[in-house]
Amino acid sequence: MTRQDLFEQIQARRSMLCVGLDTDLAKLPAGVDALDFNKAIIDATAPYCVAYKPNLAFYECSGLPGMRLLDATVDYIKSRYPEKFLIADAKRGDIGNTARMYAKAYFETMDFDAVTLSPYMGTDAVLPFLEYPGKFAVVVALSSNGSAADFEYEGASKPLYQTVMEKMMDISTPENMMFVVGATKADKLDSIRAFCPEHFFLVPGVGAQGGSAEEVMEHGANSMGGLLINSSRGILYASSGADFAEAAARVASETARL
Amino acid sequence: MTRQDLFEQIQARRSMLCVGLDTDLAKLPAGVDALDFNKAIIDATAPYCVAYKPNLAFYECSGLPGMRLLDATVDYIKSRYPEKFLIADAKRGDIGNTARMYAKAYFETMDFDAVTLSPYMGTDAVLPFLEYPGKFAVVVALSSNGSAADFEYEGASKPLYQTVMEKMMDISTPENMMFVVGATKADKLDSIRAFCPEHFFLVPGVGAQGGSAEEVMEHGANSMGGLLINSSRGILYASSGADFAEAAARVASETARL
Repeated sequence: MTRQDLFEQIQARRSMLCVGLDTDLAKLPAGVDALDFNKAIIDATAPYCVAYKPNLAFYECSGLPGMRLLDATVDYIKSRYPEKFLIADAKRGDIGNTARMYAKAYFETMDFDAVTLSPYMGTDAVLPFLEYPGKFAVVVALSSNGSAADFEYEGASKPLYQTVMEKMMDISTPENMMFVVGATKADKLDSIRAFCPEHFFLVPGVGAQGGSAEEVMEHGANSMGGLLINSSRGILYASSGADFAEAAARVASETARL
Repeated sequence: MTRQDLFEQIQARRSMLCVGLDTDLAKLPAGVDALDFNKAIIDATAPYCVAYKPNLAFYECSGLPGMRLLDATVDYIKSRYPEKFLIADAKRGDIGNTARMYAKAYFETMDFDAVTLSPYMGTDAVLPFLEYPGKFAVVVALSSNGSAADFEYEGASKPLYQTVMEKMMDISTPENMMFVVGATKADKLDSIRAFCPEHFFLVPGVGAQGGSAEEVMEHGANSMGGLLINSSRGILYASSGADFAEAAARVASETARL
């Protein structure tokens, strides 16, 4: 799926929403099977989003049954909603020999459009993912969690997240790379867009983590859309009752709308 | 498995070797099934090593059959060789909510003794792994790949890898944390041991990647052993013929011996 395809979906849906499928078995409504839950969430939110992002930890934690749930969820999205941009939230990052195997896992064995990657070990960890036309490496630059400041601002002349983005921009194009930018404040987004105007940003931290989608869209969008705004818990667990799907649709319809 | 248990194994085996199970289906000897290959490698190398480290990418790339191979390999080691220290080479790293799920995956659903983690997103990504007695978070500090210098040396007053280690030492003890230190040069090891004397280091980069196990042991060991020296390809693919297990045993017997 190309950047142009994704931009057209954003225009068609009037939405920059990515629904994070962090499906926690301990939070499912009573009596609801995990796959049925995912299918109901997907059907309910599809009119209001352009992307889905299963978080692999929530599937790996259940072992083989979890991996079967992930496979079935991916198959369901790909068969029913082939226009959706599908992101494996994996935060992988390893030497080139190993990165090639992860790229194979998510781009060949499974048919994701994108995978999130950790940049710590440098460009080796990312390069194999750039060799797949129409697929994207989504490199974590600035995260939205409490300890983001532990290391992501390190640096002599500029913060590490900027050094990461500049180095990664050198080896990629906006057609095969995006960045995780957990900035929900206007001034930070403005300063990041100043040195990275073209790439899509996957923005976590709205909804349960407290950021404002409106401020992100005002300061982070570009002429090709440029934003995927993720919400996970705020949508999945909007209601813990039998009306969970309707509640998810309602929150999705109100999040990251153009 | 405690640090004392691991030290006793090192003394009993007169070895600091960790065998990396980066099982590449494209490199198996003709006619050999992947699980049979892993079992033969394990049986052949068990007399000469103290740890095994499956690299999860090499299993994930095959989808569900790969995850079944990983499960079966872990079960084989745990049932036949319960004294071996078992590391999931996963390089995971995500926000706390997600890190808890990864900890559950590797320490509860699967019975690994340790898991490698990427520190980019800060202490949030590591803390949930420290809550399991007798289990270890193995945090990547300095990697052995060509692009390690892209970011791991960033920093105003000290290199990022040192900042990472010092911050991680603040939240942990040598009983629940180790570091990946891809330093195979004497001067670098000496300088790292100066500020981190107690923790175990998992050292990649010997064998196929060219580092010297002898130099690592001379400069990196401490009074509790303090080193796990990994070799993967150099052992697994020591021979591509029917004698692959004997060849693996021979290389293992010559690597990281006390």
